[in-house]
Amino acid sequence: MKVLIIGASGTIGKAVTKELEPYHSIIGAGRNGSDVSVDITSVDSIKNMYAQIGNIDAVVSATGGAHFAPLPDLTPELNEVAIESKLKGQIHLVLLGLDYMNDNGSFTLTTGIMMDDPIPQGASAAMANGGVKSFVKSAAIEMPRGIRINSVSPNVLQESLDQYGDFFPGFEAVPASRVATAFKKSIEGAQTGKNYEVY
Amino acid sequence: MKVLIIGASGTIGKAVTKELEPYHSIIGAGRNGSDVSVDITSVDSIKNMYAQIGNIDAVVSATGGAHFAPLPDLTPELNEVAIESKLKGQIHLVLLGLDYMNDNGSFTLTTGIMMDDPIPQGASAAMANGGVKSFVKSAAIEMPRGIRINSVSPNVLQESLDQYGDFFPGFEAVPASRVATAFKKSIEGAQTGKNYEVY
Ligand SMILES: NC(=O)c1ccc[n+]([C@@H]2O[C@H](COP(=O)([O-])OP(=O)(O)OC[C@H]3O[C@@H](n4cnc5c(N)ncnc54)[C@H](OP(=O)(O)O)[C@@H]3O)[C@@H](O)[C@H]2O)c1
Ligand SMILES: NC(=O)c1ccc[n+]([C@@H]2O[C@H](COP(=O)([O-])OP(=O)(O)OC[C@H]3O[C@@H](n4cnc5c(N)ncnc54)[C@H](OP(=O)(O)O)[C@@H]3O)[C@@H](O)[C@H]2O)c1
Repeated sequence: MKVLIIGASGTIGKAVTKELEPYHSIIGAGRNGSDVSVDITSVDSIKNMYAQIGNIDAVVSATGGAHFAPLPDLTPELNEVAIESKLKGQIHLVLLGLDYMNDNGSFTLTTGIMMDDPIPQGASAAMANGGVKSFVKSAAIEMPRGIRINSVSPNVLQESLDQYGDFFPGFEAVPASRVATAFKKSIEGAQTGKNYEVY
Repeated sequence: MKVLIIGASGTIGKAVTKELEPYHSIIGAGRNGSDVSVDITSVDSIKNMYAQIGNIDAVVSATGGAHFAPLPDLTPELNEVAIESKLKGQIHLVLLGLDYMNDNGSFTLTTGIMMDDPIPQGASAAMANGGVKSFVKSAAIEMPRGIRINSVSPNVLQESLDQYGDFFPGFEAVPASRVATAFKKSIEGAQTGKNYEVY
């Protein structure tokens, strides 16, 4: 399969690439993508990416930013980071990618444990995760031509503990390799509308 | 208690007003609000509303629009309706209302069954519902001064069947009066971070 991975150079994206690349042809994307560059916060940039790549069999989104702030400090402006990137960015990859997706292909987006198991400063990211999860569940029943859509919800990664560990006291961190298998299940399996919790 | 109801003139807002008004002082808001006018898609309009009203004990949001379209016809532009209204509009009522909320007050937002039990053409509304639900769950653990936050997720209303009934075949419609009691529980009870399903 021809698999497009947005966020391929990231912690999750690298693990997904490693898991899939023995079996599939991978196209790595990101703002400084190895194969194609895209900024998911720009509709035009997403359109350009798909026009360059042509038809694909699977799209993986392993990206999406959000601003972390104590709730009383969260402003509408700061909340826009998650709205534009984690939420709309990922959803636009689906809406604008549908015409390029081959029959029986799949979209797999990324959510995260914070929507189910909240942490301080995480309300904006949780909002985006919940929005993506519900979009996936609903969009799945309307996908044309056998196309499927799922999301993967990782716990905090062992590989990210140095960076984010202090935000997740008592969370049982998971290895990126476990998260990657959930993406493999989404792409090579037959389920749709799922949010795979890797907790 | 001094209770601000945004969307007071709507199907749900009227039922909530009827349920609460024997016991509380109600301020009705909307674009053509009886007591104060507000457009939740405008940050400035929300700021003006709160500045006019001053301190309150409870905020009810019984409003929020979304565009309904078959998934292949949903564009980033059409998806903006739900982003600006149902999602950001409701969340901004919280972010911008926090400083006006009295100690131990509450915010109660509206989601909807479509995020749990999807219908065709509902992906954009479901996205917003899921975003609001997850925001509520996460924001609840960080609310200052004993302030609480919940959401109410109504099934399709019996009162709305003439308008929306065809979208919800086989759904067990609920009376608006049942939905109103969930708002009462949120305001007069002590729970926080809940999404009350009235299904
Ligand atoms: N790490 C964790 O513990 C964890 C746990 C749960 C959920 N998640 C979620 O999983 C996703 C990926 O996390 P990660 O830790 O793997 O991130 P990461 O290591 O920071 O990598 C992010 C990747 O996304 C790309 N990227 C960033 N902004 C972009 C944009 N606007 N447009 C296109 N590509 C962009 C980056 O490449 P360029 O810089 O070249 O653009 C990079 O490849 C995020 O949504 C995160 O919230 C992470
Ligand atoms: N009815 C149902 O069966 C049902 C089921 C589940 C969920 N819901 C959700 O519940 C919410 C309310 O539904 P409803 O049926 O009661 O709606 P409705 O009867 O159409 O009433 C909407 C109310 O919101 C106000 N409003 C509309 N746009 C606004 C804006 N931009 N800023 C401020 N106020 C605005 C309207 O007053 P003005 O026109 O004066 O602004 C009106 O008071 C919606 O989010 C809906 O999706 C409804």
